[in-house]
Amino acid sequence: MANYVYIATSLDGFIATSNGELDWLETSPNPEQTDYGYAEFINSIDAIVMGRKTFEKVLTFGKWPYDKPVFLLSNSLTKLPEHIIDKAEIISGDIKKLTNQLNQQGYENLYIDGGSVIQSFLQEDLIDEMIITRIPILLGKGFPLFGKIDRYLQFKHKKTEIYNNTQVKSHYTRDR
Amino acid sequence: MANYVYIATSLDGFIATSNGELDWLETSPNPEQTDYGYAEFINSIDAIVMGRKTFEKVLTFGKWPYDKPVFLLSNSLTKLPEHIIDKAEIISGDIKKLTNQLNQQGYENLYIDGGSVIQSFLQEDLIDEMIITRIPILLGKGFPLFGKIDRYLQFKHKKTEIYNNTQVKSHYTRDR
Repeated sequence: MANYVYIATSLDGFIATSNGELDWLETSPNPEQTDYGYAEFINSIDAIVMGRKTFEKVLTFGKWPYDKPVFLLSNSLTKLPEHIIDKAEIISGDIKKLTNQLNQQGYENLYIDGGSVIQSFLQEDLIDEMIITRIPILLGKGFPLFGKIDRYLQFKHKKTEIYNNTQVKSHYTRDR
Repeated sequence: MANYVYIATSLDGFIATSNGELDWLETSPNPEQTDYGYAEFINSIDAIVMGRKTFEKVLTFGKWPYDKPVFLLSNSLTKLPEHIIDKAEIISGDIKKLTNQLNQQGYENLYIDGGSVIQSFLQEDLIDEMIITRIPILLGKGFPLFGKIDRYLQFKHKKTEIYNNTQVKSHYTRDR
Protein backbone atom coordinates (compact mmCIF):
# COMPACT_ATOMS: atom_id res chain seq x y z
CA MET A 1 0.00 0.00 0.00
CA ALA A 2 1.73 3.17 -1.13
CA ASN A 3 1.20 6.57 -2.68
CA TYR A 4 3.51 7.34 -5.59
CA VAL A 5 4.73 10.49 -7.27
CA TYR A 6 6.01 9.85 -10.81
CA ILE A 7 6.87 13.05 -12.57
CA ALA A 8 9.38 14.96 -14.68
CA THR A 9 10.76 18.32 -13.63
CA SER A 10 13.18 20.89 -14.94
CA LEU A 11 16.46 21.24 -13.04
CA ASP A 12 14.93 24.18 -11.22
CA GLY A 13 11.95 22.12 -10.12
CA PHE A 14 9.16 23.17 -12.47
CA ILE A 15 6.65 20.71 -13.88
CA ALA A 16 5.13 23.15 -16.38
CA THR A 17 5.82 26.63 -17.67
CA SER A 18 3.77 29.55 -16.36
CA ASN A 19 1.22 29.06 -19.13
CA GLY A 20 1.06 25.30 -18.58
CA GLU A 21 3.22 24.33 -21.54
CA LEU A 22 4.98 20.97 -21.53
CA ASP A 23 6.90 21.39 -24.82
CA TRP A 24 10.23 21.64 -22.96
CA LEU A 25 9.75 17.99 -21.95
CA GLU A 26 10.26 16.95 -25.53
CA THR A 27 13.45 18.86 -26.24
CA SER A 28 15.46 15.74 -25.45
CA PRO A 29 16.32 13.26 -28.20
CA ASN A 30 14.77 9.82 -27.74
CA PRO A 31 16.20 7.71 -30.58
CA GLU A 32 15.16 4.37 -29.10
CA GLN A 33 11.64 5.57 -28.30
CA THR A 34 11.98 4.55 -24.68
CA ASP A 35 8.97 5.16 -22.45
CA TYR A 36 11.37 5.91 -19.56
CA GLY A 37 9.82 3.06 -17.56
CA TYR A 38 6.34 4.59 -17.62
CA ALA A 39 4.49 1.40 -18.65
CA GLU A 40 6.19 -0.60 -15.91
CA PHE A 41 5.25 2.05 -13.38
CA ILE A 42 1.65 2.42 -14.48
CA ASN A 43 1.21 -1.37 -14.38
CA SER A 44 2.29 -1.33 -10.74
CA ILE A 45 -0.40 1.06 -9.56
CA ASP A 46 -4.12 0.51 -9.00
CA ALA A 47 -5.54 3.97 -9.57
CA ILE A 48 -4.60 7.56 -10.29
CA VAL A 49 -5.47 10.51 -8.05
CA MET A 50 -5.23 13.70 -10.03
CA GLY A 51 -5.87 17.40 -9.61
CA ARG A 52 -8.17 19.50 -11.74
CA LYS A 53 -5.45 21.35 -13.64
CA THR A 54 -3.68 18.15 -14.62
CA PHE A 55 -7.04 16.64 -15.58
CA GLU A 56 -7.87 19.58 -17.82
CA LYS A 57 -4.42 19.35 -19.40
CA VAL A 58 -4.92 15.64 -20.07
CA LEU A 59 -8.27 16.38 -21.75
CA THR A 60 -6.44 18.59 -24.28
CA PHE A 61 -4.38 15.53 -25.37
CA GLY A 62 -7.49 14.22 -27.17
CA LYS A 63 -7.49 10.48 -26.55
CA TRP A 64 -7.92 9.56 -22.86
CA PRO A 65 -4.52 8.04 -22.03
CA TYR A 66 -5.28 5.97 -18.92
CA ASP A 67 -6.54 2.41 -18.56
CA LYS A 68 -6.50 2.63 -14.77
CA PRO A 69 -9.31 4.26 -12.77
CA VAL A 70 -8.79 7.98 -12.30
CA PHE A 71 -10.00 9.83 -9.20
CA LEU A 72 -10.22 13.51 -9.84
CA LEU A 73 -9.65 15.54 -6.70
CA SER A 74 -11.67 18.72 -7.06
CA ASN A 75 -13.93 20.86 -4.93
CA SER A 76 -15.13 22.90 -7.91
CA LEU A 77 -15.88 20.35 -10.64
CA THR A 78 -19.23 18.56 -10.42
CA LYS A 79 -19.51 16.97 -13.85
CA LEU A 80 -17.21 14.94 -16.07
CA PRO A 81 -17.16 15.12 -19.86
CA GLU A 82 -19.47 12.47 -21.36
CA HIS A 83 -16.73 10.35 -22.96
CA ILE A 84 -14.85 9.62 -19.73
CA ILE A 85 -17.78 9.18 -17.41
CA ASP A 86 -16.92 5.49 -16.90
CA LYS A 87 -13.18 6.14 -16.63
CA ALA A 88 -12.96 8.82 -13.95
CA GLU A 89 -14.73 9.87 -10.79
CA ILE A 90 -14.78 13.21 -8.98
CA ILE A 91 -13.83 13.04 -5.31
CA SER A 92 -13.39 15.77 -2.72
CA GLY A 93 -12.67 16.21 0.95
CA ASP A 94 -9.91 15.32 3.37
CA ILE A 95 -7.11 13.59 1.43
CA LYS A 96 -6.15 11.27 4.27
CA LYS A 97 -9.71 9.99 4.56
CA LEU A 98 -10.08 9.77 0.79
CA THR A 99 -6.87 7.74 0.57
CA ASN A 100 -8.11 5.37 3.27
CA GLN A 101 -11.41 4.96 1.44
CA LEU A 102 -9.65 4.20 -1.83
CA ASN A 103 -7.40 1.70 -0.07
CA GLN A 104 -10.46 -0.02 1.42
CA GLN A 105 -11.99 -0.23 -2.04
CA GLY A 106 -8.92 -2.20 -3.12
CA TYR A 107 -6.95 0.64 -4.70
CA GLU A 108 -3.80 0.10 -2.70
CA ASN A 109 -1.13 1.70 -4.84
CA LEU A 110 -2.05 5.20 -5.89
CA TYR A 111 -0.36 7.40 -8.48
CA ILE A 112 -0.66 10.94 -7.14
CA ASP A 113 -0.41 13.41 -10.01
CA GLY A 114 -0.42 17.18 -10.45
CA GLY A 115 1.51 19.88 -8.63
CA SER A 116 -1.13 21.06 -6.17
CA VAL A 117 -2.26 17.54 -5.29
CA ILE A 118 1.31 16.32 -4.80
CA GLN A 119 2.01 19.33 -2.60
CA SER A 120 -1.09 18.64 -0.48
CA PHE A 121 -0.13 14.99 -0.07
CA LEU A 122 3.44 15.90 0.92
CA GLN A 123 2.21 18.50 3.39
CA GLU A 124 0.28 15.64 5.08
CA ASP A 125 3.25 13.25 4.71
CA LEU A 126 1.13 10.94 2.57
CA ILE A 127 3.72 10.24 -0.14
CA ASP A 128 5.65 6.97 0.16
CA GLU A 129 7.59 6.84 -3.11
CA MET A 130 8.83 9.51 -5.48
CA ILE A 131 10.16 8.78 -8.95
CA ILE A 132 11.49 12.05 -10.24
CA THR A 133 12.97 12.54 -13.68
CA ARG A 134 15.17 15.60 -14.11
CA ILE A 135 15.19 17.17 -17.56
CA PRO A 136 18.40 19.15 -18.20
CA ILE A 137 16.84 22.55 -18.63
CA LEU A 138 16.29 25.60 -16.47
CA LEU A 139 12.85 27.07 -17.09
CA GLY A 140 13.36 30.03 -14.77
CA LYS A 141 9.71 30.16 -13.75
CA GLY A 142 6.51 28.10 -13.90
CA PHE A 143 4.52 25.67 -11.77
CA PRO A 144 6.78 24.17 -9.11
CA LEU A 145 6.69 20.49 -8.22
CA PHE A 146 7.28 21.13 -4.53
CA GLY A 147 5.69 23.60 -2.18
CA LYS A 148 5.98 24.72 1.39
CA ILE A 149 6.10 21.94 3.99
CA ASP A 150 6.12 22.49 7.73
CA ARG A 151 8.79 19.94 8.55
CA TYR A 152 11.66 18.02 6.96
CA LEU A 153 10.72 14.84 5.12
CA GLN A 154 13.61 12.41 4.83
CA PHE A 155 13.72 10.00 1.90
CA LYS A 156 15.93 7.05 0.96
CA HIS A 157 17.52 6.82 -2.44
CA LYS A 158 16.49 3.52 -4.02
CA LYS A 159 17.95 3.77 -7.50
CA THR A 160 18.81 6.15 -10.30
CA GLU A 161 18.52 5.41 -14.00
CA ILE A 162 19.78 7.55 -16.87
CA TYR A 163 17.87 7.65 -20.13
CA ASN A 164 19.46 8.73 -23.42
CA ASN A 165 22.36 10.12 -21.39
CA THR A 166 19.97 13.00 -20.73
CA GLN A 167 17.19 12.33 -18.25
CA VAL A 168 18.12 11.38 -14.69
CA LYS A 169 15.36 9.36 -13.07
CA SER A 170 15.75 8.86 -9.33
CA HIS A 171 13.53 6.67 -7.20
CA TYR A 172 13.13 7.65 -3.55
CA THR A 173 11.18 6.03 -0.73
CA ARG A 174 10.00 7.86 2.37
CA ASP A 175 12.28 7.14 5.34
CA ARG A 176 9.87 7.32 8.29
CA MET B 1 37.54 28.85 -19.52
CA ALA B 2 34.37 28.09 -17.62
CA ASN B 3 32.25 29.12 -14.69
CA TYR B 4 31.21 26.25 -12.43
CA VAL B 5 28.43 25.67 -9.95
CA TYR B 6 29.22 22.87 -7.50
CA ILE B 7 26.61 22.57 -4.81
CA ALA B 8 24.31 20.30 -2.83
CA THR B 9 20.57 20.84 -2.66
CA SER B 10 17.57 19.21 -1.07
CA LEU B 11 15.16 17.44 -3.43
CA ASP B 12 13.02 20.57 -3.34
CA GLY B 13 15.93 22.74 -4.40
CA PHE B 14 17.05 24.43 -1.20
CA ILE B 15 20.70 25.00 -0.37
CA ALA B 16 20.10 26.09 3.23
CA THR B 17 17.20 26.23 5.65
CA SER B 18 15.47 29.57 6.28
CA ASN B 19 17.86 30.31 9.15
CA GLY B 20 20.91 29.32 7.10
CA GLU B 21 21.41 25.91 8.70
CA LEU B 22 23.31 23.22 6.81
CA ASP B 23 22.86 20.38 9.35
CA TRP B 24 20.52 18.51 6.99
CA LEU B 25 23.50 17.99 4.66
CA GLU B 26 25.04 15.68 7.20
CA THR B 27 22.05 13.44 7.81
CA SER B 28 23.42 10.96 5.27
CA PRO B 29 25.75 8.17 6.37
CA ASN B 30 29.23 8.38 4.90
CA PRO B 31 31.00 5.22 6.09
CA GLU B 32 33.91 5.49 3.68
CA GLN B 33 34.47 9.17 4.39
CA THR B 34 34.21 10.07 0.74
CA ASP B 35 34.62 13.73 -0.16
CA TYR B 36 32.07 13.26 -2.98
CA GLY B 37 34.66 14.34 -5.53
CA TYR B 38 35.17 17.75 -3.93
CA ALA B 39 38.99 17.67 -3.89
CA GLU B 40 39.09 16.71 -7.57
CA PHE B 41 36.71 19.54 -8.39
CA ILE B 42 38.49 22.18 -6.34
CA ASN B 43 41.83 21.20 -7.91
CA SER B 44 40.31 21.87 -11.33
CA ILE B 45 39.36 25.48 -10.66
CA ASP B 46 41.53 28.60 -10.41
CA ALA B 47 39.52 30.79 -8.07
CA ILE B 48 36.27 31.03 -6.16
CA VAL B 49 33.70 33.79 -6.62
CA MET B 50 31.44 33.91 -3.60
CA GLY B 51 28.59 35.98 -2.22
CA ARG B 52 28.56 37.74 1.12
CA LYS B 53 26.16 35.35 2.86
CA THR B 54 28.19 32.29 1.88
CA PHE B 55 31.35 34.09 2.91
CA GLU B 56 29.91 34.90 6.34
CA LYS B 57 28.79 31.29 6.72
CA VAL B 58 32.28 30.06 5.84
CA LEU B 59 33.77 32.39 8.48
CA THR B 60 31.69 30.59 11.14
CA PHE B 61 33.46 27.31 10.25
CA GLY B 62 36.56 28.63 12.05
CA LYS B 63 39.50 27.53 9.92
CA TRP B 64 39.52 29.11 6.44
CA PRO B 65 38.87 26.10 4.19
CA TYR B 66 40.15 27.31 0.81
CA ASP B 67 43.63 27.20 -0.69
CA LYS B 68 42.44 28.87 -3.89
CA PRO B 69 41.99 32.65 -4.20
CA VAL B 70 38.53 33.79 -3.15
CA PHE B 71 36.81 36.78 -4.73
CA LEU B 72 34.03 38.04 -2.55
CA LEU B 73 31.28 39.66 -4.55
CA SER B 74 29.74 42.33 -2.35
CA ASN B 75 28.55 45.89 -2.70
CA SER B 76 28.23 46.35 1.06
CA LEU B 77 31.41 44.86 2.54
CA THR B 78 34.50 47.08 2.47
CA LYS B 79 36.86 45.25 4.82
CA LEU B 80 37.95 41.66 5.29
CA PRO B 81 38.75 40.05 8.63
CA GLU B 82 42.49 40.36 9.39
CA HIS B 83 43.28 36.62 9.15
CA ILE B 84 42.11 36.18 5.57
CA ILE B 85 43.35 39.46 4.13
CA ASP B 86 45.84 37.61 1.90
CA LYS B 87 43.37 34.88 0.95
CA ALA B 88 40.36 36.82 -0.29
CA GLU B 89 39.55 40.03 -2.12
CA ILE B 90 36.34 42.06 -2.24
CA ILE B 91 35.06 42.77 -5.74
CA SER B 92 31.91 44.52 -6.94
CA GLY B 93 30.25 45.67 -10.12
CA ASP B 94 28.98 44.08 -13.31
CA ILE B 95 29.52 40.31 -13.09
CA LYS B 96 30.25 39.89 -16.79
CA LYS B 97 33.00 42.50 -16.65
CA LEU B 98 34.32 41.09 -13.40
CA THR B 99 34.47 37.61 -14.90
CA ASN B 100 36.36 38.91 -17.92
CA GLN B 101 38.81 40.71 -15.66
CA LEU B 102 39.41 37.58 -13.60
CA ASN B 103 39.89 35.55 -16.78
CA GLN B 104 42.45 38.10 -18.00
CA GLN B 105 44.29 37.81 -14.69
CA GLY B 106 44.67 34.08 -15.40
CA TYR B 107 41.73 32.82 -13.36
CA GLU B 108 40.10 30.87 -16.12
CA ASN B 109 37.98 28.33 -14.28
CA LEU B 110 35.82 29.93 -11.63
CA TYR B 111 33.83 28.25 -8.90
CA ILE B 112 30.71 30.37 -8.47
CA ASP B 113 29.28 29.83 -4.99
CA GLY B 114 26.28 31.03 -3.02
CA GLY B 115 22.60 31.17 -3.96
CA SER B 116 22.31 34.85 -4.88
CA VAL B 117 25.56 34.88 -6.84
CA ILE B 118 24.67 31.69 -8.72
CA GLN B 119 21.26 33.15 -9.55
CA SER B 120 22.83 36.38 -10.87
CA PHE B 121 25.26 34.41 -13.03
CA LEU B 122 22.46 32.21 -14.42
CA GLN B 123 20.29 35.24 -15.15
CA GLU B 124 23.19 36.51 -17.32
CA ASP B 125 23.79 33.02 -18.79
CA LEU B 126 27.31 33.02 -17.38
CA ILE B 127 27.29 29.46 -15.98
CA ASP B 128 28.95 26.79 -18.13
CA GLU B 129 28.94 23.75 -15.87
CA MET B 130 26.73 22.69 -12.98
CA ILE B 131 27.56 19.84 -10.63
CA ILE B 132 24.51 19.39 -8.46
CA THR B 133 24.27 16.86 -5.65
CA ARG B 134 20.74 15.99 -4.56
CA ILE B 135 20.32 15.08 -0.90
CA PRO B 136 17.24 12.87 -0.34
CA ILE B 137 15.33 15.21 1.90
CA LEU B 138 12.52 17.73 1.45
CA LEU B 139 13.18 20.83 3.52
CA GLY B 140 9.89 22.47 2.64
CA LYS B 141 11.34 25.97 2.76
CA GLY B 142 14.66 27.81 2.83
CA PHE B 143 17.12 29.48 0.46
CA PRO B 144 16.57 28.20 -3.07
CA LEU B 145 19.42 27.29 -5.39
CA PHE B 146 17.65 28.62 -8.46
CA GLY B 147 15.79 31.86 -9.04
CA LYS B 148 13.79 33.55 -11.73
CA ILE B 149 15.35 33.53 -15.19
CA ASP B 150 13.92 35.31 -18.22
CA ARG B 151 14.48 32.49 -20.70
CA TYR B 152 15.04 28.75 -20.89
CA LEU B 153 18.62 27.60 -20.40
CA GLN B 154 19.26 24.19 -21.93
CA PHE B 155 21.96 21.97 -20.44
CA LYS B 156 23.54 18.67 -21.45
CA HIS B 157 23.81 15.81 -19.01
CA LYS B 158 27.46 14.78 -18.78
CA LYS B 159 27.43 12.17 -16.03
CA THR B 160 25.75 11.14 -12.81
CA GLU B 161 27.47 9.55 -9.86
CA ILE B 162 25.81 8.05 -6.79
CA TYR B 163 27.53 8.27 -3.41
CA ASN B 164 26.68 5.96 -0.51
CA ASN B 165 23.56 4.93 -2.42
CA THR B 166 22.20 8.23 -1.15
CA GLN B 167 23.51 11.34 -2.88
CA VAL B 168 22.90 11.75 -6.61
CA LYS B 169 25.55 14.00 -8.16
CA SER B 170 24.80 15.08 -11.72
CA HIS B 171 27.16 17.03 -13.93
CA TYR B 172 25.61 19.28 -16.57
CA THR B 173 27.20 21.50 -19.19
CA ARG B 174 25.49 24.45 -20.81
CA ASP B 175 24.16 23.59 -24.28
CA ARG B 176 24.48 26.92 -26.12
